[in-house]
Amino acid sequence: MTAPNDLVLTRLIAAPRAKIWRCWTEPALLKQWFCPKPWTVSHAELDVRPGGANHIVMRSPEGEEHPNDGVYLEVIPERRLVGTDAYTVGWVPSAKPFMTLVLDLSDEDGGTRYVAAARHWTAADRDSHEAMGFHAGWNAATDQLEELVRRL
Amino acid sequence: MTAPNDLVLTRLIAAPRAKIWRCWTEPALLKQWFCPKPWTVSHAELDVRPGGANHIVMRSPEGEEHPNDGVYLEVIPERRLVGTDAYTVGWVPSAKPFMTLVLDLSDEDGGTRYVAAARHWTAADRDSHEAMGFHAGWNAATDQLEELVRRL
Repeated sequence: MTAPNDLVLTRLIAAPRAKIWRCWTEPALLKQWFCPKPWTVSHAELDVRPGGANHIVMRSPEGEEHPNDGVYLEVIPERRLVGTDAYTVGWVPSAKPFMTLVLDLSDEDGGTRYVAAARHWTAADRDSHEAMGFHAGWNAATDQLEELVRRL
Repeated sequence: MTAPNDLVLTRLIAAPRAKIWRCWTEPALLKQWFCPKPWTVSHAELDVRPGGANHIVMRSPEGEEHPNDGVYLEVIPERRLVGTDAYTVGWVPSAKPFMTLVLDLSDEDGGTRYVAAARHWTAADRDSHEAMGFHAGWNAATDQLEELVRRL
């Protein structure tokens, strides 16, 4: 299902669902692929359960740190991961509900059908996310993810 | 825990948590108390699990129907219920994320400590909810809830 203000990346990844799931849910793995180089992830805490917090700090090549906080909404191991920046832990509304991530993994000939959707509450937020470089950024990160799963 | 843009109703209710929980989660019971009379609830569907939908139609004395749709975020039976209008079922962002309901039930001498918080993303939404009659409305509904639990 897609919603009107979705930005979607989909790929067939030549790896089992279980390995891709690990890359999204284990901090040591997520740090290796989540930010397109030369950006890096300097810190990742992932409490992967509904209502659990995620705290990911992205670091620019100049050393500026950009923290991202959110919570998980739905966790179906190796199948579905949903999270949002609309809340911080304890269901405290965030300053600005910007997006919801819906990751779906399913079996397909050749590996795993990978569908990552960034959902937005408004068309303006979707457009601004796209203008910020959604497609280039998420594709570059997903290239890194594919390279990492090959080594697992 | 309260958040900056909360509106909170708290009471000691002379009934066990289990009966109050039923009034929030069984449609036939919720319909009896959820709207301050002479408003009524003409329809209620409650899929009480994280990500499950709630659909409650409020009917004015003149017969106008006002549908309210949302999803549950956290369900700890007889203890905690969290829901929001920020999503419709399937984690589809709603037209306007207005509020999050956090209901906490705990044992206390004399019955159950009942804490219902309406959380908002902005101070403007909290203020508008208050101006719409939050305190009178939620107190009147809670009077009806107390009257109902006495008969269970």
